[in-house]
Amino acid sequence: MVNTVNEVITSGQLLDYWQSHRSLTRKVIEAFPEKDLFEYRIGGMRPFSDMVKELLAIAEPGLREIVTGKQEKFDEHRDYGSQKTLLLAAWDKSTANINTLWAQLTDIDFQKEMVSFGQFPGTVQSSLFYFIENEIHHRGQAYVYLRSLGVEPPLFYERN
Amino acid sequence: MVNTVNEVITSGQLLDYWQSHRSLTRKVIEAFPEKDLFEYRIGGMRPFSDMVKELLAIAEPGLREIVTGKQEKFDEHRDYGSQKTLLLAAWDKSTANINTLWAQLTDIDFQKEMVSFGQFPGTVQSSLFYFIENEIHHRGQAYVYLRSLGVEPPLFYERN
Repeated sequence: MVNTVNEVITSGQLLDYWQSHRSLTRKVIEAFPEKDLFEYRIGGMRPFSDMVKELLAIAEPGLREIVTGKQEKFDEHRDYGSQKTLLLAAWDKSTANINTLWAQLTDIDFQKEMVSFGQFPGTVQSSLFYFIENEIHHRGQAYVYLRSLGVEPPLFYERN
Repeated sequence: MVNTVNEVITSGQLLDYWQSHRSLTRKVIEAFPEKDLFEYRIGGMRPFSDMVKELLAIAEPGLREIVTGKQEKFDEHRDYGSQKTLLLAAWDKSTANINTLWAQLTDIDFQKEMVSFGQFPGTVQSSLFYFIENEIHHRGQAYVYLRSLGVEPPLFYERN
């Protein structure tokens, strides 16, 4: 991999960036009262647990697709059980698997065109950025849920 | 600027990425009913107009600081007037100025260490990524405000 002083972000930095966001999202899941994680909603939106299921359906499978080149199924309705500890366990498993998969990205062309989950055309780079921004987007929504529940959310800029 | 097939994201792509997010945020500002933009809040959080003022205080001044090397003042209480059209005009002005400033980034070292606004240590790259993620975060919150108001927000993945 060519690494120059002018490179915007290296592959390793992008992984660290992603994982730092996943770490914050984990704290947000933890901050929810058990029941509210699965039931609380505003304005007809989904409970945060359902958004987390979407994030789980995207991150690890999406990266696996990039690494293997084999199409993955997008399934945001996988059943992890209705307990916070189980959702956190699924999150942690994905976090570890993302690290393992990323280590296989050494020769990847981030500018290569692909169709994520057979549905979303873009490049490896735009797909990865979408995975991350979608997580930030839904987590931002969870902050409103938490505030509305009277729960102080974790600090946005604390990522470890 | 060295551009290789393995580069994660080029400088030009990062600008396009940022501007595509700014375009979506503009649509979200537009989607708010006039009064609610300045007054509606959930769970003791700020009205979206105040979050937009924060975003305006970060994006263009933050980038100017990177380009000029001269410390900018972080001021999220600048008065743009309490009308949606005025806030949008300020947004559009920043959008144009960001393009102008970015054109001066040709020789920048994205890995260079800096202290954004004299307060936030990081690198040029981590500062830019923070500017963008902070926008996504607050815009996600605005989606909940809109849904709670019965207003359909713009599609998250439509960026033009």
